[in-house]
Amino acid sequence: MRIVVDAMGSDSYPAPDVEGAVLAAREWNDTIILVGKEDLIRAELKKHDTSGLNIEVVHAGEVIEMTDKPADVVRGKPDSSMHIGMNLVKIGEADAYVTAGNTGGVLAVATLRALKRIKGIQRPALTAIFPNLTGMIMAADIGANADCKPEYLLQFAFMTSIFARQAMGIENPRVALLSNGEEEGKGNELVKGTIPLMRGQSAVNYVGNMEPKEVLAGETDIVIHDGFTGNVFIKSIESTASMVGKLIKKEIRAGAITSVGGLLAKPAFGRVSKHTDPFEVGGAPLLGLNGIVIVAHGRSNGGAIKNAIRQARRAAAGNVIEAIREGIPAL
Amino acid sequence: MRIVVDAMGSDSYPAPDVEGAVLAAREWNDTIILVGKEDLIRAELKKHDTSGLNIEVVHAGEVIEMTDKPADVVRGKPDSSMHIGMNLVKIGEADAYVTAGNTGGVLAVATLRALKRIKGIQRPALTAIFPNLTGMIMAADIGANADCKPEYLLQFAFMTSIFARQAMGIENPRVALLSNGEEEGKGNELVKGTIPLMRGQSAVNYVGNMEPKEVLAGETDIVIHDGFTGNVFIKSIESTASMVGKLIKKEIRAGAITSVGGLLAKPAFGRVSKHTDPFEVGGAPLLGLNGIVIVAHGRSNGGAIKNAIRQARRAAAGNVIEAIREGIPAL
Repeated sequence: MRIVVDAMGSDSYPAPDVEGAVLAAREWNDTIILVGKEDLIRAELKKHDTSGLNIEVVHAGEVIEMTDKPADVVRGKPDSSMHIGMNLVKIGEADAYVTAGNTGGVLAVATLRALKRIKGIQRPALTAIFPNLTGMIMAADIGANADCKPEYLLQFAFMTSIFARQAMGIENPRVALLSNGEEEGKGNELVKGTIPLMRGQSAVNYVGNMEPKEVLAGETDIVIHDGFTGNVFIKSIESTASMVGKLIKKEIRAGAITSVGGLLAKPAFGRVSKHTDPFEVGGAPLLGLNGIVIVAHGRSNGGAIKNAIRQARRAAAGNVIEAIREGIPAL
Repeated sequence: MRIVVDAMGSDSYPAPDVEGAVLAAREWNDTIILVGKEDLIRAELKKHDTSGLNIEVVHAGEVIEMTDKPADVVRGKPDSSMHIGMNLVKIGEADAYVTAGNTGGVLAVATLRALKRIKGIQRPALTAIFPNLTGMIMAADIGANADCKPEYLLQFAFMTSIFARQAMGIENPRVALLSNGEEEGKGNELVKGTIPLMRGQSAVNYVGNMEPKEVLAGETDIVIHDGFTGNVFIKSIESTASMVGKLIKKEIRAGAITSVGGLLAKPAFGRVSKHTDPFEVGGAPLLGLNGIVIVAHGRSNGGAIKNAIRQARRAAAGNVIEAIREGIPAL
């Protein structure tokens, strides 16, 4: 397998990106193609033992920074590691593209320039894969499309179902619509308009509408929403988990006895952090393009980049793109 | 002050509702008017020491259950504790109405039958008051209006600003719009359409758009959203806090040493639970009606009902309704 890794993606590029590539090449023996400023990449690679690893370097002279506006980078930085890296996937030189770069930039370059949308797919979906009480859940869209139509949500449901089955090994993934109540009659106009489309599709195992509580309890494998609601949903979960952790630490430190208790209980906190750490999962698939694209968090460390590469190779091995192309449900 | 309390509101009525009324009457010496089935209320009151307290009982022969549909109760149960209780406020016999009953039912009876909307207010707002890292925050709408227009959001911002100032003592409350990013250009169509309305209003101290993280960090006093997004937002926070708590307990119990640590740290967990407990705040103001209505959680205990009554008396003392009537911003 050949995976392209954006060496200039993460907030602290190229160190985490190159480290992740080395870790992945060592673990799976794939060919990893690092794209970015060649001198920087080679200098970084020297810090690792790369003997026997299949690591290639492709030069890209421009860097899309986190502060760049999507509209400016599409035409404005044609030699960026995003343009050049995704083109390697487009021309069949590689099986997948992994980046921890500017999400808006990835989306714009991928959709408008490099890979473009699969014919019949109306909007690409940015997904999240995150832990709940029982395992992992896929959520889409989490920010690519702030305003959606029912048809988009149906396609998000279809594409995530394909990914869950082909790349994550979930046989018949359950799909729920995120809503403000499970009962008939609840939901906004978008949700109400999507229900009949979901019910009529054999390609989607629609199990109903759910509130956040049921989603976190693991009553579905996939949850579908527009990109605005989904972004609020995911970020509320992240920031609440962080806030509760901070409050507990503060209160534990406030007393001598509770401080001792906190020290003794520390391994338990570590396990919870690991379970709820978005970097453990490693990367959000951007679905609906003519190629596999996995977007890792800008704050990724080497391990997180490696996990994103794992995600990419599973998607490639599962022929996710072909399955999407062949199965697009009629509207 | 005279506060009406729905004795048939909570999931386990009338015990918590009556207990809360007794606790409030004792603490503030107000007159509390319990509305519901008189025999049940009098039997419940006998369990408490009510000597010297100003507690009145008004009979209402019908009960709106949690399973009742809003559309069915408006005309279908004219003798319910909601109809009769809110009418006491309408005719000036009482200053505020508190219920832990069916939210859809309260909303329907209040809007269509009993109190009705203040002239000029397009939609009532169901608000939440909940703890963040620095204090308390107001959020609206959290479920009364799944689909909103920019004009509604502006009015929600105005009404919550009045409540925060007059009932919570926040001098010049900061108002943010919940969004998927703070930057210019982020937001869905609704948010983008609301920004110019907010900017043009001196009655609203609009400080910009915020993501959940900034809201929980305390960078605003009020956060405004449509009822669908707001419902997902609030419920995501509640269910994540609960999930993290469960995960920590599970991991602490998994080892002998961490179990001891957990016992020693227990007071710290208790303080965090108390800080994040929605019942501590006590009740969601339903704003935009011709009278003060506070909706407590169906699972409320006596203490939570008492806290909701505190909310109601503060709103009455602050002349919230008059201030809303007088200040409605021009659209």
